[in-house]
Amino acid sequence: EEYQGAPTGADLECEGWRQEAALRMLNNNLDPEVAEKPEELVVYGGTGRAARSWDAYDAILSELRSLADDETLLVQSGKPVGRFRTHERAPRVLIANSNLVGNWDNWDHFHELEAEGKIMYGQMTAGSWAYIGTQGIIQGTFETLAELARQHYDGDLTGKTVVTAGLGGMGGAQPLAVTMNQGVCIAAEVDEERIDRRIDTGYCMEKADDIEDAIDRAEDAREAGEPYSVGVHVNAAELLETMLEQGYVPDVVTDQTSAHDALEGYYPDGYTVEEADELRADDPDAYLEASLDTMERHVDAILELQERGAIAFEYGNNIRGQVQDHRGMDDAFDFPGFVPAYIRPQFCRGKGPFRWAALSGDPADIHRTDEAVLELFPEKDHLRRWIDLAQEQVQFQGLPSRVCWLGYATDSEEHTERARFALRINELVAEGEISAPIVVTRDHLDAGSVASPNRETEAMKDGTDAVADWPILNALVNCAGGADIVSVHDGGGVGIGNSLHTNNHVVLDGTDLAAEKAAAVFTTDPGMGVIRHADAGYEEALDEAAHSNVRIPMYDE
Amino acid sequence: EEYQGAPTGADLECEGWRQEAALRMLNNNLDPEVAEKPEELVVYGGTGRAARSWDAYDAILSELRSLADDETLLVQSGKPVGRFRTHERAPRVLIANSNLVGNWDNWDHFHELEAEGKIMYGQMTAGSWAYIGTQGIIQGTFETLAELARQHYDGDLTGKTVVTAGLGGMGGAQPLAVTMNQGVCIAAEVDEERIDRRIDTGYCMEKADDIEDAIDRAEDAREAGEPYSVGVHVNAAELLETMLEQGYVPDVVTDQTSAHDALEGYYPDGYTVEEADELRADDPDAYLEASLDTMERHVDAILELQERGAIAFEYGNNIRGQVQDHRGMDDAFDFPGFVPAYIRPQFCRGKGPFRWAALSGDPADIHRTDEAVLELFPEKDHLRRWIDLAQEQVQFQGLPSRVCWLGYATDSEEHTERARFALRINELVAEGEISAPIVVTRDHLDAGSVASPNRETEAMKDGTDAVADWPILNALVNCAGGADIVSVHDGGGVGIGNSLHTNNHVVLDGTDLAAEKAAAVFTTDPGMGVIRHADAGYEEALDEAAHSNVRIPMYDE
Ligand SMILES: NC(=O)c1ccc[n+]([C@@H]2O[C@H](COP(=O)([O-])OP(=O)(O)OC[C@H]3O[C@@H](n4cnc5c(N)ncnc54)[C@H](O)[C@@H]3O)[C@@H](O)[C@H]2O)c1
Ligand SMILES: NC(=O)c1ccc[n+]([C@@H]2O[C@H](COP(=O)([O-])OP(=O)(O)OC[C@H]3O[C@@H](n4cnc5c(N)ncnc54)[C@H](O)[C@@H]3O)[C@@H](O)[C@H]2O)c1
Repeated sequence: EEYQGAPTGADLECEGWRQEAALRMLNNNLDPEVAEKPEELVVYGGTGRAARSWDAYDAILSELRSLADDETLLVQSGKPVGRFRTHERAPRVLIANSNLVGNWDNWDHFHELEAEGKIMYGQMTAGSWAYIGTQGIIQGTFETLAELARQHYDGDLTGKTVVTAGLGGMGGAQPLAVTMNQGVCIAAEVDEERIDRRIDTGYCMEKADDIEDAIDRAEDAREAGEPYSVGVHVNAAELLETMLEQGYVPDVVTDQTSAHDALEGYYPDGYTVEEADELRADDPDAYLEASLDTMERHVDAILELQERGAIAFEYGNNIRGQVQDHRGMDDAFDFPGFVPAYIRPQFCRGKGPFRWAALSGDPADIHRTDEAVLELFPEKDHLRRWIDLAQEQVQFQGLPSRVCWLGYATDSEEHTERARFALRINELVAEGEISAPIVVTRDHLDAGSVASPNRETEAMKDGTDAVADWPILNALVNCAGGADIVSVHDGGGVGIGNSLHTNNHVVLDGTDLAAEKAAAVFTTDPGMGVIRHADAGYEEALDEAAHSNVRIPMYDE
Repeated sequence: EEYQGAPTGADLECEGWRQEAALRMLNNNLDPEVAEKPEELVVYGGTGRAARSWDAYDAILSELRSLADDETLLVQSGKPVGRFRTHERAPRVLIANSNLVGNWDNWDHFHELEAEGKIMYGQMTAGSWAYIGTQGIIQGTFETLAELARQHYDGDLTGKTVVTAGLGGMGGAQPLAVTMNQGVCIAAEVDEERIDRRIDTGYCMEKADDIEDAIDRAEDAREAGEPYSVGVHVNAAELLETMLEQGYVPDVVTDQTSAHDALEGYYPDGYTVEEADELRADDPDAYLEASLDTMERHVDAILELQERGAIAFEYGNNIRGQVQDHRGMDDAFDFPGFVPAYIRPQFCRGKGPFRWAALSGDPADIHRTDEAVLELFPEKDHLRRWIDLAQEQVQFQGLPSRVCWLGYATDSEEHTERARFALRINELVAEGEISAPIVVTRDHLDAGSVASPNRETEAMKDGTDAVADWPILNALVNCAGGADIVSVHDGGGVGIGNSLHTNNHVVLDGTDLAAEKAAAVFTTDPGMGVIRHADAGYEEALDEAAHSNVRIPMYDE
């Protein structure tokens, strides 16, 4: 079996659309347009894989093809390990990836097991079959920068320069998210092919010859007040140090190299990519040391730029945690993470990166869903702006897909924003206005789905950053509600031992069953965000609970 | 609200039996006959609690009383945090206790959060509302010693002496389990009241004046080939050291002090209980040091007794892990854990401590279930022996209950042993032969429910001791199957960061819904044991899979 992207159209390989959706989403994850290294089963984010091996991949497909409408397939770290009779309303696939018992929950033990083929890194959406390429992250990045612009500037980034690094699967969204906000972006990337790829797919405008050239082009655009983005083929640490030497201070500095994985995600300075890959193979310990040395310089430079007036934030790759843990940098956390800085208020209201894909493969189906969003929420200007921008500027990769941050916010019928959208789409599928089922899923980075003290739950008001009961309850309650796929992963974007998070899919095939599932899951899932933040004492969450009738047991008594 | 044990009889406080079962099982956990320190909400095993606080307890009760048949209540570390509409076939209660993100998954961080009221230690059956007192563990202890006797002696313990310590909630089962196997037991316990309690409830025969006296009485009984048990009020380390000094070597040595919790479970030598409790309150660090010092002597003595010919095994309290981690004892693991030594072959076949309680409160209902077991499995002699012994010697505590190790082992209709039993009981409830619903649950220590490298998954054949994907899949698939309560805990009997494990309850109320739930869950749950051990390469599991038609995806292709 080879990776060629998802099958499309109305003919099923499986016994039902729920199984078919799982099969298509897994294959979509590995579409060469979507995945970073499909030939190694690597989807994105360092070594985030969709299946443990090609044998496991084949076996998953063959299990899905014969799975009955009342059976459930179990996937353990990318390998199918069992299937049981459950019932129609239950999930069709349950996935647990990369999870280790606390005292063994570290990269060393993980790598030992991985080398023996006993475990797999699932990242977030890789092992949960919900990655949709850079288009999946783009709105999150856009929203983060928009919020930054609201807090610090006049609501957009006109005349402001954002310096970052990493043009991988997710980081590649940065240049476009900056220009969508009218700003200027300089992005360092050690792998020149990645820069070219972002240019080919419209995520980045140009490639500079060198640092000098990048700064010059950026300054021209900034002075003209024009949106502009440029990639530069250089190590991030070197880019920032050079800027410091030259006395150049950008408005904003951040980073999306895969620093969460010092061995396979981050590149040390002083090596080409090829040299570094060789070093990793020959002497992984030496690689690790070199990689962490570069990270230390990288963080030092970010802190110094912040000192000189730049707005600095960590973009969820745990670079602060890495240098704190492995280089004893006590001031590593002196610049904030993006969640407490820009995202948490949204999480309090159950808002997060909700997304959906058209199983037909037909872009017209997504355009119909775009219309549906605008019809359903006509009052939301920012949603309209986002849909317009996305239609204009975001190319589809693999199955046509869309991301929209939707939340709880019930209407008079007590349906949440997310549920209203899903129920409407389900109707459109039933009516034939959409040509095949739509599968709805989300990022693991969502309102109530994750415990990650260096990222999504950094600096929680009540100090419960590390309490992992919440994602477990999230997975269980979405399973109870009848999500079609439920997954639980350790690690994700911040690395093994640093987070626990979940995902779910619901297949909207136009049936009543789908409507029941959607109404339940798209209430429980954002609802977890509201109750988790209410429990931590956030006013926005308590306010949302009051307005949207979310029961908080020990609060209203 | 005060703890008075479970309400009984046919009148419901809740809207349905599933919610009522949750309410009764929670209260049963706190029955003074069942719990060790109900006034502190402590059920057993160090500080294993049923609810985070009395306020949380009250709130859980009030939520359960108003919970609809299609709603699900969420409990986070013993506190009710939300409730959502799901559907009838879904669980009524979902529980996650004590879970922390890997790098924070340690006692220090746990104690910080606990002190602020942000988390609770759920142990195994305490926070999952499935503790039924010492009667719950007695069969497990009996089976373990029976297997030891099969491996080393003639099938029973006649003329053999077992030395152990700890007569707490679970450890208290040891003397009776030894005498049920015809052996002699000497048990050290620092808290004299615990000895008296075990004597009052028939778990231990006598109390010795001192070590000398205990050995004399034990030797008399051993020589006479009589079953006998004696408690001695002394620290375990002192008991074993004295035996070594005197050149007395018992046949078997083990231990069930709460060593997994050095601060609140284990008592240091040289202090009375009152003095130790004072020291803990005044100077917890000093307590910890003293406690670990005693543990080191304790383990040294066990190893020396083993050297001199005793059969030594750790009984799941992580005393080996404690002295290895905190005292650098490299030889701590030179004596085996009880699971690899005696229990794993049963896990491979999906067998584990299945148990049930009569919500009526009427012992006659349990006697009817005893008959049902014998009617269903007439060929199983050891089951008959167990039921006879239990009826004679095991006193009920709180709700009348029974434990029976049942497994997968399908019949021609593809129902597992566990499912056949549950379906039969459900019929008996429907027919009115049993006066009120029976709730079926189990220990967290079960075939496919736990990852615990120092206990249940110690020394797995393929080295996957620490892979926690399995318990997560177990919880999810039981939730998918429709268990009425599903719970996921960190820590349990081996302490924070050392395990992840799950539980579930199914309420047999005589309805078709209950039959559907039972048929699914009592297949998925033991089935996880079979597939987990098959995946690790155990012959017994592969054999069970072949005989019982358990699909192992990548095996039979
Ligand atoms: N919280 C979020 O929403 C969020 C979003 C996106 C990404 N992230 C995190 O950002 C990181 C990147 O994610 P991704 O999917 O794009 O990963 P990826 O592995 O696909 O891409 C990382 C890129 O960084 C480049 N790189 C590595 N080290 C470098 C260095 N020192 N200098 C310059 N370039 C370097 C690599 O060549 C690669 O192209 C991950 O750690 C991810 O978890 C978080
Ligand atoms: N794996 C299993 O099936 C299994 C079964 C039972 C118990 N355990 C483990 O065994 C331990 C005991 O469980 P429990 O529920 O009985 O706990 P518990 O806390 O109710 O009782 C522990 C008893 O040990 C006594 N004790 C403590 N330190 C002592 C010492 N140094 N010398 C003598 N007595 C001492 C205490 O006074 C107390 O009575 C726990 O660690 C538990 O996890 C495991």
